[in-house]
Amino acid sequence: MYPESIKNLIESFKFLPGIGEKTAERLAFSILDLEDEQTDLFSDSITEVKNKIHLCSRCNTLTEDDFCFICKDDSRNKDVLCVVEDTKNVFLFEKLGMFNGLYHVLDGLISPLDGINPEDIGLDKLIDRIKEESFKEIIFAFKPSIEGETTALYIKKVLDGMGITVTRLASGVPMGADMEYVDSLTLERALNDRKEIE
Amino acid sequence: MYPESIKNLIESFKFLPGIGEKTAERLAFSILDLEDEQTDLFSDSITEVKNKIHLCSRCNTLTEDDFCFICKDDSRNKDVLCVVEDTKNVFLFEKLGMFNGLYHVLDGLISPLDGINPEDIGLDKLIDRIKEESFKEIIFAFKPSIEGETTALYIKKVLDGMGITVTRLASGVPMGADMEYVDSLTLERALNDRKEIE
Repeated sequence: MYPESIKNLIESFKFLPGIGEKTAERLAFSILDLEDEQTDLFSDSITEVKNKIHLCSRCNTLTEDDFCFICKDDSRNKDVLCVVEDTKNVFLFEKLGMFNGLYHVLDGLISPLDGINPEDIGLDKLIDRIKEESFKEIIFAFKPSIEGETTALYIKKVLDGMGITVTRLASGVPMGADMEYVDSLTLERALNDRKEIE
Repeated sequence: MYPESIKNLIESFKFLPGIGEKTAERLAFSILDLEDEQTDLFSDSITEVKNKIHLCSRCNTLTEDDFCFICKDDSRNKDVLCVVEDTKNVFLFEKLGMFNGLYHVLDGLISPLDGINPEDIGLDKLIDRIKEESFKEIIFAFKPSIEGETTALYIKKVLDGMGITVTRLASGVPMGADMEYVDSLTLERALNDRKEIE
């Protein structure tokens, strides 16, 4: 029913997460309303992202070069390493602008139930790096979950005796949350991690 | 902060209606998870849609050829013409599969308040077509609105005395709607257009 090129474009939008038939149709038709320069940029950047983007050879952050913009920046604090489970989180923290250390990106978290073991998420590379560089503190910025805890504990064990401080993000009731909507695990953690008001 | 190609891809997604910064970022990163064949299809189809798609020279439906798939189909009922305000509605009706006549796509609806006059929506081409072909009925499938009524009445006036039946889609309470949430204009129309139960 649809012309070939529109059909292909609808199919393409459906490759993307969270985009179903109706949205894909709407987006495909909206391409027709764009300027030529816009569709050229769109089409080219899809190809370029696939061809140019790869992992930073030191920390796994996405980059077009050998080293990412963090690793190339000599002004960063080389004493602190923030370990994240996804490259997107590097950009999330950088947008905040409150962290000036280095990052290391894992390929997910350990999850034995899903068959994801330490060797599947690139822990060897992280541990080699920690042994080579001289961090004073390692921060685990994983999402609060069984998988996050498992991964943090596993790494902490390997680093035992190296004299490195190991921390994790505070977890608890999010700012602005209604207490009645906070789940019990979060509440438990918030209670255990309570802080003295000074 | 983002590598150039990712930045361009995020900007590109933001060209699309209803897609803001956060969604654009999520979609741009998801491109990295696609197979090469998928990104090739995506990139190519954006360019192809812009280069190959144009209006059917008879009815304005989007097509890659001179005539659209409806106008090329000899089995369609040439007595009935369904006039729509947007090419997407042709595909909407075709999916329903309940209409076997021909279509004509206007470029929107008359809206004097927005400065959109009869000559701006391609009415000349529609009226020329009606004079050349021999329709027995013209159905206006516009959205129920002042603009829809204005456009329908304008065309009806021009066709006066040509012996063509002019109809519009029924409008009223949608199937499954809660009466308390139906707006008063819809309710008024539903009351005026009430049908005898036979």
